[in-house]
Amino acid sequence: MAMQHTPLLMSALIERGARVAPNEEIVTATANGTRRQSYRETRARAHQLAHALADAGIGVGDVVGTFMWNGSRHLEAYHACAGMGAVLHTLNIRLGTKDLEYIVNHAGDRVIIADADVLPLLEPLKDVMPTVERVVVATEDGFEGWSTSLPRAVDYEAFIAGRPTRYEWPEIDENSPLGLCYTSGTTGDPKGVEYEHRSQYLHTLTECLADSMGLSGADTVLGIVPMFHAMGWGIPWAALMLGCKQVMPHRFMDPARLLDLLVSERVTISAGVPTIWQGVKAAVEANPDAYDLSALERLTCGGSAPPPSLIRWYWDALGVEMVQGWGMTETSPLATLSRRVMKRSQLSISEDEQFENVAKAGQLMPGLELDIFDDDFNRLPHDGESVGEILIRGPWICSEYYRNPQPDKFHDGWLITGDVGKIDPEEYLIISDRSKDLVKSGGEWISSVDLENHIVALDGVAQACVVAQPHPRWDERPVALVVPDPGRQVSAEAILAHCATAFAKWQLPDDVLYVDSIPLTSTGKMDKKVVRAHLADQEYVLPDLRKLADSG
Amino acid sequence: MAMQHTPLLMSALIERGARVAPNEEIVTATANGTRRQSYRETRARAHQLAHALADAGIGVGDVVGTFMWNGSRHLEAYHACAGMGAVLHTLNIRLGTKDLEYIVNHAGDRVIIADADVLPLLEPLKDVMPTVERVVVATEDGFEGWSTSLPRAVDYEAFIAGRPTRYEWPEIDENSPLGLCYTSGTTGDPKGVEYEHRSQYLHTLTECLADSMGLSGADTVLGIVPMFHAMGWGIPWAALMLGCKQVMPHRFMDPARLLDLLVSERVTISAGVPTIWQGVKAAVEANPDAYDLSALERLTCGGSAPPPSLIRWYWDALGVEMVQGWGMTETSPLATLSRRVMKRSQLSISEDEQFENVAKAGQLMPGLELDIFDDDFNRLPHDGESVGEILIRGPWICSEYYRNPQPDKFHDGWLITGDVGKIDPEEYLIISDRSKDLVKSGGEWISSVDLENHIVALDGVAQACVVAQPHPRWDERPVALVVPDPGRQVSAEAILAHCATAFAKWQLPDDVLYVDSIPLTSTGKMDKKVVRAHLADQEYVLPDLRKLADSG
Repeated sequence: MAMQHTPLLMSALIERGARVAPNEEIVTATANGTRRQSYRETRARAHQLAHALADAGIGVGDVVGTFMWNGSRHLEAYHACAGMGAVLHTLNIRLGTKDLEYIVNHAGDRVIIADADVLPLLEPLKDVMPTVERVVVATEDGFEGWSTSLPRAVDYEAFIAGRPTRYEWPEIDENSPLGLCYTSGTTGDPKGVEYEHRSQYLHTLTECLADSMGLSGADTVLGIVPMFHAMGWGIPWAALMLGCKQVMPHRFMDPARLLDLLVSERVTISAGVPTIWQGVKAAVEANPDAYDLSALERLTCGGSAPPPSLIRWYWDALGVEMVQGWGMTETSPLATLSRRVMKRSQLSISEDEQFENVAKAGQLMPGLELDIFDDDFNRLPHDGESVGEILIRGPWICSEYYRNPQPDKFHDGWLITGDVGKIDPEEYLIISDRSKDLVKSGGEWISSVDLENHIVALDGVAQACVVAQPHPRWDERPVALVVPDPGRQVSAEAILAHCATAFAKWQLPDDVLYVDSIPLTSTGKMDKKVVRAHLADQEYVLPDLRKLADSG
Repeated sequence: MAMQHTPLLMSALIERGARVAPNEEIVTATANGTRRQSYRETRARAHQLAHALADAGIGVGDVVGTFMWNGSRHLEAYHACAGMGAVLHTLNIRLGTKDLEYIVNHAGDRVIIADADVLPLLEPLKDVMPTVERVVVATEDGFEGWSTSLPRAVDYEAFIAGRPTRYEWPEIDENSPLGLCYTSGTTGDPKGVEYEHRSQYLHTLTECLADSMGLSGADTVLGIVPMFHAMGWGIPWAALMLGCKQVMPHRFMDPARLLDLLVSERVTISAGVPTIWQGVKAAVEANPDAYDLSALERLTCGGSAPPPSLIRWYWDALGVEMVQGWGMTETSPLATLSRRVMKRSQLSISEDEQFENVAKAGQLMPGLELDIFDDDFNRLPHDGESVGEILIRGPWICSEYYRNPQPDKFHDGWLITGDVGKIDPEEYLIISDRSKDLVKSGGEWISSVDLENHIVALDGVAQACVVAQPHPRWDERPVALVVPDPGRQVSAEAILAHCATAFAKWQLPDDVLYVDSIPLTSTGKMDKKVVRAHLADQEYVLPDLRKLADSG
């Protein structure tokens, strides 16, 4: 051994912010303003939480669920779990009861830390999550009077109070699990991606490269992307490492409140899905002189592709650079990224050309391999024309799903992303079609297959096909095409009521269309590309847009 | 396994530049101008070199020496060796014959790639380097007529000509050796530091963090620090990864030529020792309107601490940010780094305070541990007052020396750096004393112990002590204090002539002083601190500065 082989553990990164910037702030939005604490306090509280979890029986490898908004206590849970070697399982608070039940049990959560305001969403699970020994309730202003039927509930502050402020983080193997995040896939059950210390360590460094997000300790970061989505795109880890000022919106996700935070905290960089930036844009346009956004420098946009017009508006109106990233839960998530200027040759092209590049998924991050392949896994040329399945490989890419390996999602060590795209001669990845069977609504995935499986279970339904339809606010909304059993009729109301028993309200189809048959591919699968093309030919418009169209 | 465990190999990073920026340039200074080639060509030639080396019997783990200036062919050697798994051993062309002989044999170089202009420096070794099977000669304009007595010499271009331009890089273990770099230590023999793929991979990413050097693909980089010093501070690797335009000065290191390159190639970032920047400053001051340095943004300065006045001059006169880095061969080398603004709290301090910080060694890079310790290895407070031995630990820090472990240089898994310093409450490292027994001249180490050992071997010399004395151009120059044997006299001429048989000219002491005794520490070692203090009390001035002082 010639060089030290110290393990790549998150504990080696996350203490640094509190060390170099102990007085820097973590700001959490509250009902009446903000709650503020320093990095020094945050670190001390994270160590206290680790002691409390250890006393509750949590050791290396045990799973701790969080059911929380972005806030300082969620950040403490990140810090504590990573440090002590527990597995941070970020539960998506927007999931329906059925999915939550599956995920909590599949992961085997032993403790769940939940924000008090979303506690009611967990209540229906009280008798169906036997592994959960206790629930820790993070209480914000206005929710002090919470009560629950969940097991051994304790207030977060009482849980950590009086604990030692220093926990000796264990030196564990760098490939130990760090976190769990479930993604709604094309098959029925959500699939878990298990992040490891080494993978997230490398991802964190990559995010802070000058040619990536370029995060700096001088930044003030507003992470809008939920911390239950692919570890908040890694921003909480990067900020802990660098000691950035962090601003966390908690449950206050409306454009007015976000703008208030952007302005009053002098945020320099923020991150969220296009829907968020559409909303902020509309609010600014409605009241152009109301907001001093002079501190804001860049917005990282991911989850789905931002429209070029949106990218351009932020630059022209506000001088703000939108940075586009592409990836998925399985890729930690950062895989490709696009900035206005990422290489010297781009200094001398026109601004229009620069923004054409930003509208692409971007350039591959160092250390990853990515290519497009035909159906027989032959590589396709990078000519900006050839469209193929995107496969990716590298040290922060998923190699199998948690307790459900799904080898058909992998090929020869590569992840089959499910996205299809092309690569241009400048090596930009361009996503042609997003994952074929998923609907992306407001930054959240809806599994069409899940809906279909549920609908066909209803008496009188022969076949169901759910496809995405474009929506200006939500990006996409699901529409169900239904083939009734011969001689039977099933009302749209009945179908939606049936769906509502298993899915969240926002996951329900916007429309139910009755058809005689569903077109199939040569291999017997439903050909959704043809279905979508038929709808386009018929100039189909979603119900809530028809009024708009009629009045237009 | 939940995430892919693809190894952290340099081959995963170094192909990226040619992929994303195939037409970007590698510019090498020549006698009459520049020689230019694209990243596409450079990559192809590196793969050809790998094929040629493989044909010459070089496989994974075999050592390839380079004896070269910074130039495109040296970069190709970096690329080829890293890709094929050979060990790149960068020989310091400024070493004396005795050290070179030791190092070539100790490392077991099998092939040496040498620049034609420095070939004569290798000639004396022709019969004393039995492991070297052949020498590949890189020929620049004006040196086409080289001849040599070295074994099986071949011109570099003939060596690679006609080889395939694609070599399938093997997937080796990430802890495989990548490179060897020898450092002149305080003991007699130079010590080898063996870099590994994983260590350099992490170092490369770290160098490109926004809060580190912040290298970007949009940069034009002039790496002045020799590629035989700690892998050119990692800049060649980072540039290959990002696809930066690279400008390489080759043997043209005078300020006039460097300025010519800075101006004509519109360099944005450069890196070198303070001596270089002193020289460039003097040339600019002598001719203030001659140079358009408007493209230049930042200078990375390392090797020894730049004077605060120099840092300030570059900012005030040119608007150029000097970035200070601290490290050593054993730390790959980047350990701490200081920029004008690295955290948010520094945005609101005065420019004077910002530059006080830049004059410090800097903030610890993420993923490393560093602290100051007393003689019993107790940690000292970070109060900006307590001075202690600097120890460092992390994944790109040396764990032992090559084939010469020297366990006394390590403690409990930490490297004992040999430097002493303090840490202030803002977590800035401040070097109080550089390594106690080394002389740093023009960015190069001179081992005082080596000189001492050699001088005392001369008949008539009882004791010798070599200490550094300050020099405005070279930083430091060595001075020898000699205690003659009783009743004997040894002339300074004889001592210097004796040194010249083993050391390079620039390594020879500038002065020989005769003393009756050398002060000793309590543990019986020569107390050089006291020796230097005596010289200071006597207002000692180096010989070549006396004329200046007399005329002043």
